[in-house]
This record gives sequence, C-alpha cells and structure tokens, in this order.
Amino acid sequence: MTATIENTRTEDLETVLAGAAAAAAPFGALHPATRAGMLSAVANALEGAADELVPIAIEESGLPEARLRGELNRTVVQLRLFVEVLRDGSYLDVIIDEADPDFAIGPRPDLRRMRVPVGPVLVFAASNFPFAFSVAGGDTASALAAGCPVVLKAHPGHPRLSARTGTIVREALTGAGAPAGVFDVIHGVDPGTIALRDERIAAAAFTGSVPAGRALFDIASARPRPIPFYGELGSVNPVFVTPGAVAARGAQLAQEYAASFTLGVGQFCTGPGLLFLPGGHGLEAELTEAAAGASGGRMLTENVHRGYHARRRELLDVPGVRVLADGGEGEGLDATPTLLATDVPTLLEYRETLLTEAFGPLSIVVGYRNTEELVHAADAVEGSLTATVHAEPDEVESMSGLVDRLRECAGRLLFNGWPTGVAVTPAMQHGGPYPATTAPLHTSVGSRAIDRFLRPVTYQNAPRELLPEALRDGNPLGIPRTVNEAGASQHWGE
Amino acid sequence: MTATIENTRTEDLETVLAGAAAAAAPFGALHPATRAGMLSAVANALEGAADELVPIAIEESGLPEARLRGELNRTVVQLRLFVEVLRDGSYLDVIIDEADPDFAIGPRPDLRRMRVPVGPVLVFAASNFPFAFSVAGGDTASALAAGCPVVLKAHPGHPRLSARTGTIVREALTGAGAPAGVFDVIHGVDPGTIALRDERIAAAAFTGSVPAGRALFDIASARPRPIPFYGELGSVNPVFVTPGAVAARGAQLAQEYAASFTLGVGQFCTGPGLLFLPGGHGLEAELTEAAAGASGGRMLTENVHRGYHARRRELLDVPGVRVLADGGEGEGLDATPTLLATDVPTLLEYRETLLTEAFGPLSIVVGYRNTEELVHAADAVEGSLTATVHAEPDEVESMSGLVDRLRECAGRLLFNGWPTGVAVTPAMQHGGPYPATTAPLHTSVGSRAIDRFLRPVTYQNAPRELLPEALRDGNPLGIPRTVNEAGASQHWGE
Repeated sequence: MTATIENTRTEDLETVLAGAAAAAAPFGALHPATRAGMLSAVANALEGAADELVPIAIEESGLPEARLRGELNRTVVQLRLFVEVLRDGSYLDVIIDEADPDFAIGPRPDLRRMRVPVGPVLVFAASNFPFAFSVAGGDTASALAAGCPVVLKAHPGHPRLSARTGTIVREALTGAGAPAGVFDVIHGVDPGTIALRDERIAAAAFTGSVPAGRALFDIASARPRPIPFYGELGSVNPVFVTPGAVAARGAQLAQEYAASFTLGVGQFCTGPGLLFLPGGHGLEAELTEAAAGASGGRMLTENVHRGYHARRRELLDVPGVRVLADGGEGEGLDATPTLLATDVPTLLEYRETLLTEAFGPLSIVVGYRNTEELVHAADAVEGSLTATVHAEPDEVESMSGLVDRLRECAGRLLFNGWPTGVAVTPAMQHGGPYPATTAPLHTSVGSRAIDRFLRPVTYQNAPRELLPEALRDGNPLGIPRTVNEAGASQHWGE
Repeated sequence: MTATIENTRTEDLETVLAGAAAAAAPFGALHPATRAGMLSAVANALEGAADELVPIAIEESGLPEARLRGELNRTVVQLRLFVEVLRDGSYLDVIIDEADPDFAIGPRPDLRRMRVPVGPVLVFAASNFPFAFSVAGGDTASALAAGCPVVLKAHPGHPRLSARTGTIVREALTGAGAPAGVFDVIHGVDPGTIALRDERIAAAAFTGSVPAGRALFDIASARPRPIPFYGELGSVNPVFVTPGAVAARGAQLAQEYAASFTLGVGQFCTGPGLLFLPGGHGLEAELTEAAAGASGGRMLTENVHRGYHARRRELLDVPGVRVLADGGEGEGLDATPTLLATDVPTLLEYRETLLTEAFGPLSIVVGYRNTEELVHAADAVEGSLTATVHAEPDEVESMSGLVDRLRECAGRLLFNGWPTGVAVTPAMQHGGPYPATTAPLHTSVGSRAIDRFLRPVTYQNAPRELLPEALRDGNPLGIPRTVNEAGASQHWGE
C-alpha cells in the first residue's frame, strides 16, 4: 500500500507546533467536566464514523474487519474511560496541608498541591493498532484528558486512515469548543524528529520497535532541555508452565499458546515469545500441530515484514535451536507462524539473540529440567510488559520464588491466562523495565496513563482568587482531596 | 578542609553494589510497618548522635551550629514523615478491578495493581545541606521507605561527616533487622559514575549544579538500559513585586529579600535570584543598605567558591547591569553579598547570562515598566523550583495572567513570602521543569518524594497465595485501596 499522504511541510509543521503551544494554556485551564465533554464528542464521532474508517483501515493494514471493528470500539471505550477519570477528579491528586504553627521543623504555611498539564505532547503512533495505539489511541486520549494539546505523528503504515481519523478528532474537539491547535496530525520521519527537538513540545509518547524507540528516546534526552519520553519498545512476554499444568491441560495449553503468539500475525506487543515447558513434556506433537494449523497473514508494513524475516533467519541459525513448525519466508508481505524449540543452556548461551523480541508470528518453546533452572532462565529475561505462569493449585506455593523474580522484570503478572488482550481499565499496567519501556514508572494503557502528562505544582499561601478551583476552600469541584490538619507532625514517628 | 577519606576502591565498590543488589528482594519484601521501624531507628540514632555529628559538620561545611542543628532536626523529621507514609500505606497506590464479564470491550479478568520498589538507588549527596540533602537526607529516606537499597555517593565537601553518618545509618538499619547491603556510602567521582553505569542500579537521584547534574543525567540516559535520573539542578527563583506591595511594605520587602538571598551565604536551591520591582520603586537605598548589611561567610567548598566568583564577574561585565552592593572577591573561601540592578530589556537581551542561577549570595533587581513587560520577562524565565508574587489584596485579580504563566515554569508558587525554607510535608513540591530538575513530574522533598522509587505492577487472576498482602481480599494491611466493581463500564461516558 503506497502512501497517498505527503510528508508535512516545514511551514505546516510550524503552524501545528505554534497552534499546540497557543492552545496549551486555554485547553489546560478548562474545567475537567468541559474537557470530559470534548473527549465524549470525540468518542461519539469515531463511533459514528466506523463504517467510513474501518474499510480504510482494512485496506491499509491488512487486518480483518472484525478485529478492526473491535479495536475501534476499544478506542471509543478508552476515550470514555478518560471521561470517567475527568469526572472523578482524583487524577488531580490534590493534597492540602493546612497552615501549622506547631509544625515539627518550624511554622508551616498553607500548602495546596495539585497536578497540572505538562504542555504540548508529541505522540508517535504505532503500526500494529491502527485505532487503539494510533491517532485517537490511548496516548492521545490520556494526553488530551490531562489537558495537553497533542501533535500526532502518523504511522506510515496507515497514512490515509491517520489523516481521516485526525480530521474527525480535530473537528469533534473544536466543535465541542476546544481551542484551535489542540490536536493535529503530522506525517513523515523528519517532521517527527524536528517536532521532538522543538522546545514547544513538553513530553512525547511512542509505541514501536526498540531501535526506533531508542533513537527517539536519545533525541528527547539529548535536547538542551530534555523532556520525558514514554516509549513502549520490545517485550518477550515469557510464559512459564509447571509439570502439573502440563499434566492437567497440556493439549489445551498448546492450542491457546499457538492462538496467542499468532494473534494478529504475531504483531501484538504482548505476544508470548517464550514458552517454558518442563523437559519431557510430551507436547511437541500438539505444539507443532497447533502452530502449523494457526493462520498467518499479511504483515502490517514492509518494514515489519522485512524485520520479522531477518529476525526469523537469525533465530534459525542459532545452534541448538530446532524447528517445530516452519512458516517459511512467505510471499509479498505475508508471514506464516514459525515455532522453534531449545533448552535453557542454549537460551542462556545465545541470550543476546534468543531473548530479544521477534515481532511477528514466531515463538520459542524452551525445555527446562527443574525449578532451579527455570528461575535461572527467568533471571536472564529482560524488562517485559508481561510474564505469565501456568500452574495447578497444589503447585502455587512453590512458584513464589519464580513469581517474585518475574515481578522484577515485568509490569503485569498473569496466572493461567495469556498475555495478549489488555483490559483498558483502572488497574491495568502496560509497561515495565527497559526495553519494555523507557519509563518503568508508567503505563500506556488504563486510567493511570494520564499520570504521564501531569506535573505537580504547589500553591503556598495563595489568595483565594488565584487558586484553581480544585484547591479552593469548600472543594467547589467536589473531587477527592487529601487534607492534612495542623498539629499532626507532633505525633510523627511515635 | 582537605578530605581525609579516600576514594572507594574498585573491589569495595563491587562489594557495595553486590550487597545492594542482594538486599533488594528481601528489603523490598518487608512489611511496610517493619520498614517503618527501621526508618524510626535511623531517625533516633541520628537524633542521639547530634553532639557527635554537628561539630564535624561545622568543621567541614563552615555552616553555623544553630543552622546545622536545625538541619539535623529536619533530617530526623523527614525520616519520621516517611514512617507515617509507610504506616498510612496509600503510597502503594492499590487499585483493584473486580473481574467483570460485562466489561465494555470483553470480559475483564481480576486485576490488582500496586507499586513495588524499583531496585537499588544511587544517591548523589549535595554540598549545601550536609544533613538534609546528604547521606541521610530526603533522597535516602524516600528510597529506603520505598523499599530500595541505597548506595550513597558522598559529597567531597563533607567526607568525614558522610562516612560517620553513613556508619550510623547502616548500623541503625541492620540493628533493626534490615538485610546487610541495604545502605552504604561510597566516595569519589569515578566510583560514582561507575556505579551510575552499573546494571544493578535501577534509579539515581542528585542535587547539585547544572553541569554536574546534566553530565550524570546524560550517563544515566545513555546506558544500554537507561534508568530514571532525578536530578535537581539550577533555579533562579524569581520574585515579582507589584506597585501596591512596594507602597504598602517596600522597606520590609527590601529587608526580607536581602535576608533570603544571602541565607546560608546564598547557597540555598531556592534562593531568590531575581527581584522584579516596578520602575521608580524608590527602594534602591533600602535594598543597597540591606544587601550591604547582610552577612557573608565561608562558602561550602573551593569549587562552589570558584564557580560563584566566576559567575559574579560574568554578571558584572554585562552592559546595562549596575552594582548596588559590591561584595568583592573575598578572601579564602569567603563571599560577601553582591546586589545588582538592571531592567527588563537588558535582562532579555542578555538572558543567557542573566537568567542562569548564580549559586551564592548574589541577586539581581530588575525594574519593569508595566504588567505587560513583567509577563514578557516571566515568559523568558526557565524551569524553576519556585516563583513568588508579592501583591496587595486589591491587585490580586490583575495578577492572574502572570501567575498562570509562572505556573508553567515553576514547581511551587508563593504569595507574599520568600522561597527559602521548604516545608517537609505531604503537599510540598520541590521540583520543576528543566533546568530546575531533570524529572518535572516529581518532587525531592515531602511525602511524594517516595513516588520516584516505586513502579506499578498488576497481578492478573493471581491465586491468593501468590498475592502480596497489599492486594489480598479482606485488605489484611488495612490500607487505603481503590476497588472498582464489575459492571461500571456499562455506564461510562453517559
């Protein structure tokens, strides 16, 4: 699919950046309920445009209609989640310390802390979710909810969808009263990096590959004034299966595993790249059959296809790696699932190659001899979005050492399930230590994704008229607030 | 004062780093109340050692006894603040989403999110607070509270105090049952940067100059696996005074300003570097007298002294900058207050020089013609820890444009007060956009300093036995938790 959208011209990029900068103050100052209404308008507009958008998405991404309709629904629900976040108001994280003449280290002034928008956010859209991690995806929704204008760098895998979605989002926002410049879409690698270096951009978010994400992180960090860069990069998402789980439901696990690692032609951030099975598991036939029977399909872009097949060949060349199901090279942009097998010593010897994400329908079954070897392998796993354990109830307690270790490298720990499929909900954590993300304290999915775009400010002894409503006496916004009364420090540490 | 402590040797550094890595899991797994007891033990030990520590601090820092005793008390109170944070438990930020078969984008599993320690933290101590921003200071207290082992890189300005404080902290921690390796002090620039590059260090904190902090930030960001670097660097802390405030209390403001910018020989992060006064304010005699009458003293280190005088000469050379009070070059490590004056056009023309922190007893009075010019000047101010407005009640509403602008560059907004003196309390924000800090979402003072060292993890469908107590049914820790019931998403966005 060739792009029919040209790169953003320099003068247009300047207009976009100037517009975002100008919109920051008025947009950030809106009452949260007003901004909630704007997000609602975007959600409704996208919902109403499904029949127009989904066909473009099918054409550009090659993904099936049902998946794309579901993904658009997820995108709409995501926006409505942030409507709820804004209505609730706890995202403002208000803390009020009453003036305290008896404070333990001298008189304390009246201190009122809240969170304010960081300023214009640059979002780099992903290829693999043309709706949910793209123009109107979670990064955009959370940044807008926080009160930050968004400059959206479109992914070249779906340029026309990006342009059209961008127009719908922009028109819905301004139609609901948002200031001009609050949202715009730009196209092209160079415009993206120029924007990332621009002083008017206060934070950036990205979902994609390790090389691209790291290059952008390095640019953001090397600026004269560095900015936060929230990159979601690569993740192997290991799955650990106990002997009891194999005995109880081995064949079912083989089926579910194949379905999970081949989902969306293996182009999910949370696809399981490693399946640890006890040696002598006896599932090789089932695994081979399930993988060989799973469907492949067209990959998202030429880059993704080329990168996947290069990784695949690299993995096939590792001594001690066997092929259970060989998807071959495929034609055009196609890829067919490939399943490999190895053991823990080989995994550790070639960890540089084997413990790096293969973005596509490929996974590696790793045989382990005992729990000790399993923990040893877990020690070698780098930062990952997820880690999964399949175990029977009577094995659970013996897993606690492994689970503690996995918690150090992963953002989400799953039990008796599969990592693909990420709920968009308050308790979700979609993040993890590097290389899963460049910002391990944050999530890019769920309510808390808004935290990335908010910065605390404390007002000290402010006159009532200058206080934002969130901080005023009587709590006019009616939001959750923490109020600390005078005198408490006299009892600290008792 | 020459250092009597040698740089940490390579083999000792390895022992320290290995010890911190080994302590991370057991220390992080402790019940919060147990860790609270350990912090209490440190607070009590430091309190009990005041008569031993303060004389060393006086000798090495040149700061007066009353100040150092007050600072040690602040350090003790700071530790007790985190005892309260641990007892309260809301720092764990627990969110529980009940399983929801009717969730808007498909069945939602049981999701339970909490925050866990990031791992071993490297803290670079500051020169200007030998207690409160040093070995047992806020960075150490908040990292230990979070459950992270601390490797403390001592400041060369007070090496013996650092070694002795480090021993007291370590003995108090291990005496209270903390694992060996949970805390240690290292000395020397090279050991510090080697530790910063070490894979076992998961985050770093720093308080100091822009050049040193930026160099360390760059190292942390360029690691194969980058880590969060919480640097507090430089801040000009502008103060804006209205005509009404000059008329009502001009002479008093001149006195208070001189006291604030010369406090601790001007070596406070929050010292006011710029005072904006309306043209024709008529306070020049009072300001000159107050500055000339304020006391100077020995600066903290040779580096600080050399850097201050170089900056001072640079400022004196700017055309359009007048000298109101000339502190001269001083002898030895001494510095005497210098007060300069200029106008907004000069400030903007030479912004590179004039809008950069001068760490020492120097400040600049800037005359402005009208509110428009004042806002224009405020636009040029870079990221700052604080910004202050002095205004009379009838002027307050006309200040809202200026205050909104100041909020974009500062972490704390003060009214009719002075920025020196930072309350250690839940609502404090000690941070701001670059160059005030390298991490504008965070604070290095107050309860929320703990946020820097905690990372979210979500448990999905976890068996009860594998859940941390914080996430278990029935809330055995008795902590604040957010619980989201099933079914709510059906009503989102309505």
